Amino acid sequence: MKIGVLGTGVVGTTIGTKLVHLGHEVMMGSRTKNNGKAAAWAKATGPKASHGTFADAAQFGETLFNCTSGIASVDALKLAGAANLKGKVLLDIANPLDFSKGMPPILSLCNTDSLGEQIQRTFPDVKVNPSQLPGEHDVFVSGNDRVAKAKVTEILKGWFGWKSVIDLGDITAARGTEQILALWVRLMGTLGTANFNVKIVR
Amino acid sequence: MKIGVLGTGVVGTTIGTKLVHLGHEVMMGSRTKNNGKAAAWAKATGPKASHGTFADAAQFGETLFNCTSGIASVDALKLAGAANLKGKVLLDIANPLDFSKGMPPILSLCNTDSLGEQIQRTFPDVKVNPSQLPGEHDVFVSGNDRVAKAKVTEILKGWFGWKSVIDLGDITAARGTEQILALWVRLMGTLGTANFNVKIVR
Repeated sequence: MKIGVLGTGVVGTTIGTKLVHLGHEVMMGSRTKNNGKAAAWAKATGPKASHGTFADAAQFGETLFNCTSGIASVDALKLAGAANLKGKVLLDIANPLDFSKGMPPILSLCNTDSLGEQIQRTFPDVKVNPSQLPGEHDVFVSGNDRVAKAKVTEILKGWFGWKSVIDLGDITAARGTEQILALWVRLMGTLGTANFNVKIVR
Repeated sequence: MKIGVLGTGVVGTTIGTKLVHLGHEVMMGSRTKNNGKAAAWAKATGPKASHGTFADAAQFGETLFNCTSGIASVDALKLAGAANLKGKVLLDIANPLDFSKGMPPILSLCNTDSLGEQIQRTFPDVKVNPSQLPGEHDVFVSGNDRVAKAKVTEILKGWFGWKSVIDLGDITAARGTEQILALWVRLMGTLGTANFNVKIVR
């Protein structure tokens, strides 16, 4: 499958590499056409990896991964262009942690709103599926489009090997999955590692 | 030990009964001297159970449990009186879920503040230890007073049988433990039960 990965950070490069290893064609998108990190990643990852602007990557991908930082996500998606997003599944791995006011990070939006909802409101024609891939033993999916969510669940299980994917319902569930970050950050400090997961025990 | 339980709801009566069964003397406090639920609870629970105002219960208890609803907690503690709280350990089991605007509940405060911090700020001389007893397989403790926290950990393990108690640090950790409620409420809807727990897998 052709996949667009938006973002050139650790999350974007890790997921991009994984997707190429799974046999997909991946274009990494960034703010500029000649981003050094994106170019280096594409060169290192082989012929199935390419890079371009956010708009290039969004147009290229049948399925899209938002791996930009949360506070930059809406701007990045605006650069990608609503027309290039329309009708596509967007696995939204961005989180709303805001480090600009120092440590500990706060959430850029919270409680009665979430980043997932903000993206879905701004781009009603993209199928947003907030999926916090790292850091959870159970993975939570949510989103307004049932078919898109089934596809995302298939991607999480089939491509990434997650066994337990819990469907939390519509996009407003992003409030819950984003707000757990405050506990996650605290636990990371307490445990001295990011190598832990949250599991729901029934 | 003499214990004051503030609040007459399900949490207050459940914990009050458990504490009496453990051999403690428990006074349940409420807004009025003759609260029907508190009186019925005391009568049903035997000679070690009594009831009175918030101030009566706070004065009576060497250790206090805040089992009031989160949006009413600061008012309830004001009625209890700062002098009656001074120097005591307050196990704060209240949560900031606000149902007044309909479902789903939102948090009455969030992100850069928490109910636990609000209580600690309002009553600097009480040793606040936010401990969300129900709904978690791992139990999290936090608070500014190290000795009080050790005592709370002992209570959680020795009296209530919790095996894993994770110390998250100072009172600002209440942001994390309170904000996880948004996910918890959502999971309760998805799973159709409140009979699940959050476990940290390392």
